[in-house]
Amino acid sequence: MSRLEEALRDSADEVNRALLELLPNANDTIGRLTDAMRYATLAGGKRLRPFFVLSGADLFEVPRAWSMPTAAAIEMVHTYSLVHDDLPAMDDDDLRRGQPTCHVKFDDATAILAGDSLLTLAFQVIAAPDGHPDAAVRADLGHALATAAGALGMAGGQVMDLAAEHQSFDLEAVIRLQQLKTGALFGFCCEAGAIMARADEAARRALRSYAANIGLAFQIADDLLDHEGDEAALGKAVGKDAAAGKATFVELLGAEEARRRADRLAGEAVAALALFGDKAALLCEAAHYIVSR
Amino acid sequence: MSRLEEALRDSADEVNRALLELLPNANDTIGRLTDAMRYATLAGGKRLRPFFVLSGADLFEVPRAWSMPTAAAIEMVHTYSLVHDDLPAMDDDDLRRGQPTCHVKFDDATAILAGDSLLTLAFQVIAAPDGHPDAAVRADLGHALATAAGALGMAGGQVMDLAAEHQSFDLEAVIRLQQLKTGALFGFCCEAGAIMARADEAARRALRSYAANIGLAFQIADDLLDHEGDEAALGKAVGKDAAAGKATFVELLGAEEARRRADRLAGEAVAALALFGDKAALLCEAAHYIVSR
Repeated sequence: MSRLEEALRDSADEVNRALLELLPNANDTIGRLTDAMRYATLAGGKRLRPFFVLSGADLFEVPRAWSMPTAAAIEMVHTYSLVHDDLPAMDDDDLRRGQPTCHVKFDDATAILAGDSLLTLAFQVIAAPDGHPDAAVRADLGHALATAAGALGMAGGQVMDLAAEHQSFDLEAVIRLQQLKTGALFGFCCEAGAIMARADEAARRALRSYAANIGLAFQIADDLLDHEGDEAALGKAVGKDAAAGKATFVELLGAEEARRRADRLAGEAVAALALFGDKAALLCEAAHYIVSR
Repeated sequence: MSRLEEALRDSADEVNRALLELLPNANDTIGRLTDAMRYATLAGGKRLRPFFVLSGADLFEVPRAWSMPTAAAIEMVHTYSLVHDDLPAMDDDDLRRGQPTCHVKFDDATAILAGDSLLTLAFQVIAAPDGHPDAAVRADLGHALATAAGALGMAGGQVMDLAAEHQSFDLEAVIRLQQLKTGALFGFCCEAGAIMARADEAARRALRSYAANIGLAFQIADDLLDHEGDEAALGKAVGKDAAAGKATFVELLGAEEARRRADRLAGEAVAALALFGDKAALLCEAAHYIVSR
């Protein structure tokens, strides 16, 4: 097991423990809602976004106790987006991480409310006084997360993704779609540590550039997996985007050029972190890992 | 026009101006989402929750520029809850404030995402550095709002409300349902000014007590309107809860006793504000207004 794989496993374990503790657990009528929140959040997943939050915070030696609430919060936001995207009114997916999706396991209403509640809990956790000791940092983190997740960020990206079934998007539009749908949240993850440490603008710019490159690389790699992969290994339906008439990077660029571009983006992500020197070794490995999944 | 009616109208105008400015406006594919957010939020409504935020802040002479972001945010959260509650998977309502509901005017997917984005924007606005100058206050407001809106607050109340169609709730359960579904957010509205002013615990307790009483009074009055009212005046379907087999206060208590209880709660709300003296006159009037709509 490589150093990165070990780090990914360790941080996923830590994040899972934090999530277990942070997710509410009602034993009355509301239990159905809290069960659905736990089901969707604890069903596995690589915890890649929290890993970027924690590793970004490590660059500035931010204590784990200060960075973990944001790491857990970002996984809640990611999970909320999956739960809502999977709904019949949206992508209508029955399978996620190899398990029935939240609305299949429970029902549509519960899935909508579980997503709503996970999003809300993320902001509660980030703002909570037992997290980062500097309240100004907590406010800034909440503001940055909301900006990344909102209408001009992730939610807007999902709207573009839904429109992509009826419109033919060119490469520029698909890049824009992905910058919003996955890139905005990746950007927040990578920059969060710099916010926690009140780092200077150069550091923040470097992390944003890293995030923009890996975000896009990640999506291209996803399209390649979707193109080549098999459903059992991925734990979700494959070839769906192409079948739905959505333009993918593979379709627009060809598989070979898509692969090349993903590798180049990973290289650019690594270059962006030069100013951090050896401290960024793990994040550099992660950039290459993302395109070689 | 009474002093209260004038104050309600003036604060609604101010809130509407703030909302107009804060809601995003995209002119590309995402325009469908931002249109839906604006449609749902700007379709009218009495802006009662923002009024309580602003009036509560006035008690402590918090400047309007510091309290308005929270007032606007609470209306976004309220609107998000209406948009999601109206969805076919939930209450399946076609009419709201006399207009087609968001999913009827747009579509289910857009309505889900518009609700998501309004909720997210609320946290963005509350945490934004151009709002309250004290970052610790902004973090506390975000934390308190999330707590009130989440699984153990408003969203949990909606789960109970959905369950009420299949279970027969007694008075205690209906009170609990309403404390969560509308009471938690009312509680935040009324206490927000005290958070902004870093007021002492006695003041906060008084405002929470006021809120708990008017929250319940408001819901009983709503049930009475639903029982007596006509659809044209209300701008939404009437008699729906009773028809859906949901226990209402009117059904559990009888109309006469429900009316008496609402009046008594309004009186208790007023009594809770005694320590504020004349400064709370407007909030006292509002308590009586709520039960005499």
